[in-house]
Amino acid sequence: MTEQEARALWMVASPGRTTVAVDGDAVLGTAIMYANRPGPGAHVASASFMVASSARGRGAGRVLVEDAVAWARAAGFRAMQFNAVAETNAAAVALYRSVGFSIVGTVPAAFEHPKHGFVGMHVMHLHLG
Amino acid sequence: MTEQEARALWMVASPGRTTVAVDGDAVLGTAIMYANRPGPGAHVASASFMVASSARGRGAGRVLVEDAVAWARAAGFRAMQFNAVAETNAAAVALYRSVGFSIVGTVPAAFEHPKHGFVGMHVMHLHLG
Repeated sequence: MTEQEARALWMVASPGRTTVAVDGDAVLGTAIMYANRPGPGAHVASASFMVASSARGRGAGRVLVEDAVAWARAAGFRAMQFNAVAETNAAAVALYRSVGFSIVGTVPAAFEHPKHGFVGMHVMHLHLG
Repeated sequence: MTEQEARALWMVASPGRTTVAVDGDAVLGTAIMYANRPGPGAHVASASFMVASSARGRGAGRVLVEDAVAWARAAGFRAMQFNAVAETNAAAVALYRSVGFSIVGTVPAAFEHPKHGFVGMHVMHLHLG
């Protein structure tokens, strides 16, 4: 995508927040966090994460996730919800579980994986506060 | 909200679609339908519905839902998913079930209901094709 498209996708307006995990000058990963829904769903936060393939296994994902949860708690959200976690992304599922998330349900075949074909997407949830 | 805000919210760009159920000149309800997610989730449709409180019980909701499902099937979507159905909205849950949707999971306390307080939101799903 173009830089303009990327900015529109990833630079979240306040009170949401965009974060970056760095090692010196190297960007290891990045996160965005925001209210999952407007109005009567605005007390639940959500977030999205990316970790550079060259940085896997170095803890960048954990730093980003723990920071996002801390932000949501401090901002007064009552819960955090991930709407679409590919069930084949075992590292992400394990990481989210390790900070307290549980799987609410799995939408069958909702993600078209480039290698595995149609796989389920977990809805994951964490109570806060 | 202003008319401009309402148009931005409800007039869905093609290939999505906005529909209206009418009785003569009276608008009974309206629906929007669209891909639930971009990219690797774009094979799943979603939709949102509103029925005028004065028109409840006259079947407008069913007409809108059945039309949305027919549209999704004809457009080649593999499934339809509702991300956030308030569990206290028994009429909607029963209607969605009656056309084949099942509850994938329920996110606890995700909807702040004006009367009932924090209630769960169902994720509901229908295979197509």
